[in-house]
This record gives sequence, C-alpha cells and structure tokens, in this order.
Amino acid sequence: MEKKAIDTLLFGGMVVAMNPTFDVISDGAVAITGSDIVDIGRTADLQARYTPSETVDCTDQVILPGLVNAHTHIPMTLLRGLNDDLRLDVWLGYLMAVERQFVTADFVRLGAKLACAEMIQSGITSFADMYYFEDEIAQETAAIGMRALLGQTAIGFPTPDAANHEEALQLIRKFVANWQGHELIQPGLCPHAWYTSSPEQLAECAALAKELDVPLHTHVAETQFEVDNCHAQHGTTVTEWIDKQGLLETKLLAAHCVHINRHEMDMLAAAKAGIAHNPSSNLKLSSGIAPVAEMLEAGCQVGIGTDGTASNNDLDMFEEMRLAALVAKVKRNDPVDLPAKEALTLATIGGAKAIHLGHLTGSLEIGKRADLLVLNMDGVHNWPHFHSNPEAIYSRIVYAAKSTDVAHTMCHGRWLMRDRQLLTVDLPQAQTDAVDVARQIDQFVQWRESSPENKLAALIGRETPDTFEAQIRAKLTAGQASTIPTTISSLAAVPQPNIEHTDTYLILESDGDTAHQLRFRTETRSNDTGTAETQHILTLLNQLDQIAAGLTLGQAHYHGTADRPLRFYREYFTPDREISRTKSRQQWHLSYNDVDLVVNVDTVPAAESGESASYILEIKARALSAAEAKATVAVLQDLQQHLLG
Amino acid sequence: MEKKAIDTLLFGGMVVAMNPTFDVISDGAVAITGSDIVDIGRTADLQARYTPSETVDCTDQVILPGLVNAHTHIPMTLLRGLNDDLRLDVWLGYLMAVERQFVTADFVRLGAKLACAEMIQSGITSFADMYYFEDEIAQETAAIGMRALLGQTAIGFPTPDAANHEEALQLIRKFVANWQGHELIQPGLCPHAWYTSSPEQLAECAALAKELDVPLHTHVAETQFEVDNCHAQHGTTVTEWIDKQGLLETKLLAAHCVHINRHEMDMLAAAKAGIAHNPSSNLKLSSGIAPVAEMLEAGCQVGIGTDGTASNNDLDMFEEMRLAALVAKVKRNDPVDLPAKEALTLATIGGAKAIHLGHLTGSLEIGKRADLLVLNMDGVHNWPHFHSNPEAIYSRIVYAAKSTDVAHTMCHGRWLMRDRQLLTVDLPQAQTDAVDVARQIDQFVQWRESSPENKLAALIGRETPDTFEAQIRAKLTAGQASTIPTTISSLAAVPQPNIEHTDTYLILESDGDTAHQLRFRTETRSNDTGTAETQHILTLLNQLDQIAAGLTLGQAHYHGTADRPLRFYREYFTPDREISRTKSRQQWHLSYNDVDLVVNVDTVPAAESGESASYILEIKARALSAAEAKATVAVLQDLQQHLLG
Repeated sequence: MEKKAIDTLLFGGMVVAMNPTFDVISDGAVAITGSDIVDIGRTADLQARYTPSETVDCTDQVILPGLVNAHTHIPMTLLRGLNDDLRLDVWLGYLMAVERQFVTADFVRLGAKLACAEMIQSGITSFADMYYFEDEIAQETAAIGMRALLGQTAIGFPTPDAANHEEALQLIRKFVANWQGHELIQPGLCPHAWYTSSPEQLAECAALAKELDVPLHTHVAETQFEVDNCHAQHGTTVTEWIDKQGLLETKLLAAHCVHINRHEMDMLAAAKAGIAHNPSSNLKLSSGIAPVAEMLEAGCQVGIGTDGTASNNDLDMFEEMRLAALVAKVKRNDPVDLPAKEALTLATIGGAKAIHLGHLTGSLEIGKRADLLVLNMDGVHNWPHFHSNPEAIYSRIVYAAKSTDVAHTMCHGRWLMRDRQLLTVDLPQAQTDAVDVARQIDQFVQWRESSPENKLAALIGRETPDTFEAQIRAKLTAGQASTIPTTISSLAAVPQPNIEHTDTYLILESDGDTAHQLRFRTETRSNDTGTAETQHILTLLNQLDQIAAGLTLGQAHYHGTADRPLRFYREYFTPDREISRTKSRQQWHLSYNDVDLVVNVDTVPAAESGESASYILEIKARALSAAEAKATVAVLQDLQQHLLG
Repeated sequence: MEKKAIDTLLFGGMVVAMNPTFDVISDGAVAITGSDIVDIGRTADLQARYTPSETVDCTDQVILPGLVNAHTHIPMTLLRGLNDDLRLDVWLGYLMAVERQFVTADFVRLGAKLACAEMIQSGITSFADMYYFEDEIAQETAAIGMRALLGQTAIGFPTPDAANHEEALQLIRKFVANWQGHELIQPGLCPHAWYTSSPEQLAECAALAKELDVPLHTHVAETQFEVDNCHAQHGTTVTEWIDKQGLLETKLLAAHCVHINRHEMDMLAAAKAGIAHNPSSNLKLSSGIAPVAEMLEAGCQVGIGTDGTASNNDLDMFEEMRLAALVAKVKRNDPVDLPAKEALTLATIGGAKAIHLGHLTGSLEIGKRADLLVLNMDGVHNWPHFHSNPEAIYSRIVYAAKSTDVAHTMCHGRWLMRDRQLLTVDLPQAQTDAVDVARQIDQFVQWRESSPENKLAALIGRETPDTFEAQIRAKLTAGQASTIPTTISSLAAVPQPNIEHTDTYLILESDGDTAHQLRFRTETRSNDTGTAETQHILTLLNQLDQIAAGLTLGQAHYHGTADRPLRFYREYFTPDREISRTKSRQQWHLSYNDVDLVVNVDTVPAAESGESASYILEIKARALSAAEAKATVAVLQDLQQHLLG
C-alpha cells in the first residue's frame, strides 16, 4: 500500500486521547495534516501508513489534548500581584480604580500577549475570556494562534470601552460581526453578572446571544453574599433569576457556581450550560469550594479555569486541575471524589464542551483540530512510573506533572512552542513593555497612597471639591442645654428633626493637628410622619487650624453617602486607630449677622462606666475657602455668647 | 580598610531575609565563609568589604533562606502514584502490603536519593523525616549535603526494620548515638501515632527522647475518625492523651493537627511544640483543612510539610506554601488569613523552628548556616513586578513563583544545585535503579491482583491454608423444620447456641461456577448468661464442584475475624455485585458414621415483599483436601435422608 503524505507525525509517545473511550496508547502516534488530526494509533502502524514532512520523537513523553482554560480575564496579567490577601470588596476597590485609569486597547493587547505566552508554556491551547476591548484581544489571540471563546463585556455602568449598556451592545454586534466564522476565534458576549446589569439589560443580552447564535459567558453564584442578595432582592436562586431573563436559553458558560444547589445544577445540566470551576480564585478570595463532584453527578458540563491573574496569580492549568482534584475531596469529605482521570477530563474535553468548543478541541480524535501538548514525564518529581494500575497515568499527569514539563504545544496544527521555546509571541518585547506599564501603575498607586484625599478620589472615581468650616465646640451644663432651645427660637432659627448619630472616626494620619479623619456616620432622622430614616454618611475631614480653645477651622474633602460598610473603609484605609461616639442631636439652621449657621446641641448618653450624660454645643459655618470660613469666626463667637448669656 | 577574604559572595539580588525584622534588601548581597553566613547587606557595601573566592551574580533574582519541609517520609518517592484517589484505609491496605514486601535498607537509600534530588530542585534545604532504616537515610542525606531532623520509627507492631517495640527502641538508641552532634543530621525518634503504640510504649518513647535530648516526631489528630476514637477510648482529645504519656515534655514535632481545638493549640504552644501542616496530603486523603490561622493566633510554632509522595504526590514546597495560603482562606471564610508573607514565614523560619532547627536555619542571618536558594523572577508567569506595595515581593514568591524557578540551592555553605544542575546526587543512576524497583513492585501488584486469594493474602500479610467442605443444602417445609430438633437429638448431636446472621456476599469474579465470594458475616450468638455477643467474620470461598442438585463441594481460602468494616472490603475488592441475607440459625455438631458434621436449620425471615418465612437445612463436613471432602458425600446424604425421613 502506498504511503500517504502528511504534514506532521508525532510518534513514540504515550497517547492519552481523552476521547469517549479514554484510549491510552503506549508507543502511540498522532498524524496531522493542515489544522486537523488525520490519524491516531500505534507508532508502527502510523509509520507504515504515512510519509510525514515533519516527525517529532515523543519517546518517554505523553501526548495529550491541549488544555482548556474555561474562565479567565487575560489582560489582568498586567495587574498580577498588585494587591493580594484582601477581602473581595477591598480588592475590587483597589483594582477597579487601576482598571479605570489604565485599561485601554493597548493595555489589553499587551496583557493578552503575556497571558498567551504563559498559557502556551503551560500547555493551554483554548481559553474563554471575559474583558473589555475584546476585539483587540481577538486580534492578538488569532495572531499568536490560540483558540478562544472571547466575550465582549456588557455591564450596567461605564466601562473602559463603553459609556453605557447601549454602547456595549453595539460593540458586541460589531465584535461578533468581525469574528463569527473565524477558524480560531469564537466570539461571544459577557454580561458581567446578574447584579451588575438590570433585568432588562440581562434579557437584552440573552436575546442578542440567541439572535447572533453565540455563547453567553457570565459570573454565577461566586459568593454566598451574592446568593443571599439574590434571595433578598428577587426571592430566587441566582440560576432561577438568570433563567427568568432568558440566559439559560443561550449557549451559556456560567463561571464559578460555587454556591448552587442541586436544583440549579439540574437546570444548568438541562440547559446544556457549561460551568467553569476556578478553584484557586475561589480559595484565594475565600468564596468557597464549588460542589464539582455533585455537579458531575447531576450531568453538568464542567471545565476548569484559572480566572484572572489578579486572583490566582498565574495561568497554570496543571496547578488548577491538581487543585480541583484536591479540594473536591474535602467538599464532601470523600477521597474518591474527582479522581485524577476525572480532573484531567475537566481540564480537557470537559472544558472544551463547557466553553462550547467540544466539537473542535479537548480530545485527540480523528477529524478534530490538532490542539495538543507533549509532556515530559522523566522529571524526578514524577518518577518512577508504575504500569500495573491503568489509572496511574492520569495520576502522574494530575498529581505530579508540572506545567514546566510541557515540552511542545500545538494549536490548529501550528506549533506554538517547541522545546519550551515560544514560536509566535515576542516575549522579551512584551516583558519589556510590561515593565513600562507596571511603572506607570506604581506611580498611580504612589499618588493614591500619598494622601487620604487621593485614596478616596481613586475609590469613588473622581476628585471632589473641598469645603471648609469654622466651628465652635463647647461643653454645656445640663441647665445651659435646657435653655438654648428657648433662646435660639427668639433668633428665628429653624428647628430640624431630631437626629441620632453613631459616628466612627478612622484616624488616618496621626501627625498632630493635621490628622485626617474619615467619619462613618450612621444617622437616624425622625421625619414628619414619625417614622425614622437611617442613612450612612461618609466624611473625610481634617483640622486646618486651632484658632482658639474650642474654635477650629476644618476642611472636608468629601461628604456624601457611604455606599459600603464601615468594615470596607476600615480595611481600605487601614487607620492607625479609631474612635466611636453615639449622640442625640437637636439642630437649628439660622442666619445670624448675615451668616448662615448651623447650631447643634448634642446629648452624649451616660457612659457604661457610670459617668453621667454630657451636653455639647456646636456652632458651624460652611464656606468654599479657608479664608471665607475664617471670616465667620467673630459671628460664631457672638452667637455663642448670646446663647450662653 | 583592608578587604577580608571570604568563600562566596552572592550579589545583586533582592535579599528576602525572613529574619525577625523581615528585611528586604534590593540589590542585596550575602557573604559566606565555610558553612556560615558572615554578612548580609547592600551589594556595594559587601563588595567594598570582602574579597570572595567565588562570586554569584543574582541580578533580577531573589535570595531566600532554603525552604524547610517540616514533615515527610522520603523513601516513599518509590511508591509515588502507585495508588491514588482511595479512602485512607483502602489506600493503606494497598500500600502497607507493598511496604512489607519491599522496604529494605537499599530501598530507603534509593528512595532518599530521589527525594533529596527532588527537594533540592524545589529549593528545600532542610526536612523532617519519619520512616524505617533511618540510619541509611541519614547516610544518604549527609552525603548529599542536606540538613534534616530524621526520626527512627517506633511502632506497636512488626515493621520492616524492627520485629517489636523493644527492638525499635534499641535501633533508636543506636541511631541517635551514631548521629548526635553531626553538623547536618539531627537524630530523633518517631512513635508513629498514639493509636499505633500502647500508652506504655508512648511513655517509653517520651522518656527516651528526654534522656537522649532529641526531638520526638509523631502524627497528631490527622483525621476526625482518629479524634473520635481517642474520645471514645480515652475520653480525651489527642493532645491531652499524648500529654498524659509525657510527649509534650519532649521537643515535640506534631504532624498534621487537622482536628485540634483551641485548648490543644494552647497546650502545644505552651510546650513549644512544632506543628507540621500538610495541606496537599490533608486534602488528598480528605482529612480536612487544618486551622492554621487560629494556631498562629494561639502562638503555635507552625511549619509546612509535603508529607510522603504517596499522598501528595510530590515534594514541592512552592506548591505546598501556595496551597497553605489558599486553603487557610476558606477555613474561616476570611481572605486575609495567612497572607503570602505569613505563608513564606511558615515555609522558612516557621518550619525551621517547628522541626527544632531554628537556631541553625530558616532565615538569612549573620552567624546562621548558609542554607539558601536563589530564585528566578523573570518568568512570564511572574511578570510584571510592582514596587509600590512592599508586601508584593511575598505575593510574587508565594502565589506566582514555581519550584522550577529555583536556580541555585546551597546548604551548609555547599552548593547542591547550580543553574538547576544537581551537584551531589547521581540522579540518572538513581532514576535507572528506581525503574528496577518499580518493575518489581508492578510484578507484585500483578500477582496480588491476579486472584482474590492473593489479594486477601497481601492484605493480611500471609498466605492462609485452604479448607474444603462438602455441603448439602435443602429447602424445608415449616413442618420438616420443626421436627428436625427432635430427630437430631436422638443422634447424640450437641446443640449450639442460637445464632443470628447477616451475611453480605461480595461476588468477585462472575465467570460461572468458579465465582469467588467474599462473605462478610455479622454473627450474634446468645451465650450461656443470656447476653449476646456479636462478631464479624470474613470468609473467602468458591464452589469447586456441583455434585448434584443441592450438593456442592466448596473451598474456603480464608476464614477468620474481619477486622475492618464491610465498606473497606467493598472498596478494596471492588466486587461485580453483592448479595445480602439475614437468617436465624439453629446448629448442632455431631459425629455420624465417624464423620464430624455440622447441621444448621436456618429460618429466613419473611421478606418485605410478603413472601412468608422459609427454612433451609444445611449439612456440612470440613476437610483438608477436596478428595477428603468428597469422600464424606455419602454420609451427608445418609444423614439428610435420616433427618427428612
């Protein structure tokens, strides 16, 4: 029989096919022509059948399908290690400020290059990405030669590439039109999560995914906090809620699913949704351990993802699949859950199906694309080998192999790495460029950390105008406190509703008089109908000058609603110390000698130590400059004298 | 000032000292003479002070103290990947048979070589080992040039190197005498665990450790099962129990401590005991997640260990410290628990103190031994670097660096690896030798797996003589069943106490008549005093011949106490199917025509399906050969006729 010409023959390796029959061929070979696998079998058989242009001796190595990274945000390589070991909201508080400042088309191009280089080195050939400027990411990915489901983000607030939801949808249409049908890139769309879009926006995304026939990739039930919020706001589980908006009718890829119940698993299985399990990220942010063994029992299509490097901190699927196998065993206290073979399945064909590319990649099968890696098995960390147990090969790959054991990586029939040399990325240039970006980010962080004002501005995303205030503060006797209401009413002061305050002062810089204080105030106001309204108010202030005893000039850098809990501000600002006070306030607004003033009489309740209640008079004038505030001092003193007689 | 001659100057690297003040020196240098660190500082300063014989340029690299592997069983490298994803007792069932068969002085020498090679490659310079033939391990370790706390094992049953506890104690005395005072080897002793030694034996170990002034290394509270047993048997926690035997008065190293409470932590802290945390092993065997953050709050001295490769499956302390940092965050659902800096502390100076070598190693300090590693930081997986956050260096090391980034390893001033080339182990020879050992183990496993008899023999550690049995089995009517007691008493049969049986038959090889059955019998016998005694009996049997309907010739390969639960046998033997039966038995022993027989009348209770109770007659004769058993058939048939009239 005449031999047939082919492009490449890999031979002499152990082929671990991850096909439906889990074929393992010792002394095996894979024949490749163009982008496709054309034959798989024993070396002798394939050598007899084909004349290859290129041969690759894989003796003592394993030939595996390329790994699939089922959930990531690849440009975040440029934020690796910037902030770690923080609570999720604090971490996001730091991170989103940097993203707002730095994420541009160029930024994502560079981040994508670094990420692709790292992924190719760890044997990844396909990945599912969610980020901004996804068109640029697609260009880099296609040029480098990796396969990907890339999702352009839609979110209910301004992002680096879209000012609003409508713009985001337009970007998605354009992105899909550019890439639909590409041999490597499967475009898709990414509503970030149910809680960052309105129900209408989610439904629009689902409708668009169906109209364009592209996958929809979103975050689902990552934290218990999210699940509790969904129950509180909508009375449903997260999966039920996104189902209501039509997301389960799309080719769905649900990232995380750490906190889903069996009913949700059944819904996701019935919807043929993919689930991306991200064990490192879920541990690092203390989100929890996803119930992967139970998901598999429910028939869910599960893959493994690295998530972004900002919460991992690398893109190493060998680490990730090992960790997936390990943590599954403490989730249900069962050491037989997620054995090595199943973990490798998740990292290959399971992931390929989860990201809706299972027809192309994830296993070594004739007719599929030639996406593969060749793995060294002779390291001392993976020695010796036992052959009496047929499952041992999976154990060697999952529990002992390292990403650095990957010798070659091929995607779509094209070599991306040979002998650990990257062939399609200019890594030295990318690393040099990254140093520049890191330097700029470092400068931004230094600016941010240089003052509490900057730190707050970075958090809220804008500078705020300062206000100034002259203030008199004086202790009152109980008698004085009781007479002031009468005295002040004779001055045509307008009484305000009674207020209860609980203030926590975070002392940020303890260098004498210029200490900044961040005041987190819980204010309860009795309104006209007799019910109480509570709000949280954040004020960043510092004392500019002590004009006299009890008479100060202060500056407020921010005064507005506190939209995060006190704990957040404590962890974000890391104060030197903190002080808490509770008081009841009577308040009047009045114009006195043509100056608008606020007068407070505060009752500080008796302390637990037994000290009796105390009373404090405050007279304040607000102004737009320090000089203007200072000019009111005489009026304040006048009023003080008038009130205290 | 004249320059001073030194042996080696490492310069230009970032020195991460892990000393009490956590010094980090950019463009730092370390000066070494002989075995010791003689200076640490800025490159320019040290270059001005010293004339080194050897200089090592560490530009763009990090200089770290050598990592400390606080708990391992190094010769188990030779068992890596042999059995995985099994429940602990099943895994031990497989493993201990192989250890019994293969562990010799040569085996541990070879395993130690492989392990040291792997550990040096991952930047480990010190470790704490617990195994057999520890003298041989010490010889290899010292020759290779690593530092170690090595513990010779004492255990309450025969081991590969000691027939009993007395022999083990003698070995310990000899081992300590050989190595006490060695510059690299700290000898110690290892009662394996409180549950594998009697209280007296534990107390003897503690007394010996105190007498010889050496550390005592043991397993503590690894599983909830162990803790529950300790409560049930002794009414105490594990820590309280070992304290009763005097173990907390020794230089204790307690491995695992997965399930200890705050009081136990306080006890261990007060005793200045070391704790070895083994996250991979504890996940893989589903033991749980140790409360490390709480241990640190209690002031415990905690290190990180890889445990043996049979439960990990490698000796990679970078993986281990990353995992320690990650899993700590889901233990208390707090992402700020065990930040990177603390994880690195545990892997270096924390571990050194835990294994009672903190005065020598674990940090870069003048006067300490020169135990260090030089780490490449320029991999794309660890890029870019941010400098605005001083903690970021720890994050880069813990969350992104890989063991394969270790460029050089030095211990006691001697280079063990330069540019990833091992200098003190003949690794190719060791790997070749390991192939031979693996082949022999594979052969043993094939023998074991080739028949249920072999599998049982491997489990119980010995071959058992077969017995044979001819048996008649016949259905009885209720009337027949009621007359037999009278008939048989006329034959001078000796009635036995009534018995209740619950039998589970595990059908092991379903090829027709020769199917092996493993019977797990729960037998409750009414004794003379009217109380009931329950025991579990294991019988491995198969039918040799069907002589006639209801008349069979059988073979029992084992008949004895079942010392493990039914679940164990199910998971160890993986039967094709299983059958359960419950019955009440009347039994007589008699001699009939000079043959010793057993007669049973079994009442099988009414099934839930509504079928009424049924009655079965069994007549059996035991023999030492098939022929002898067959010769009794006529007598059995005679008696059957007599009984049924």
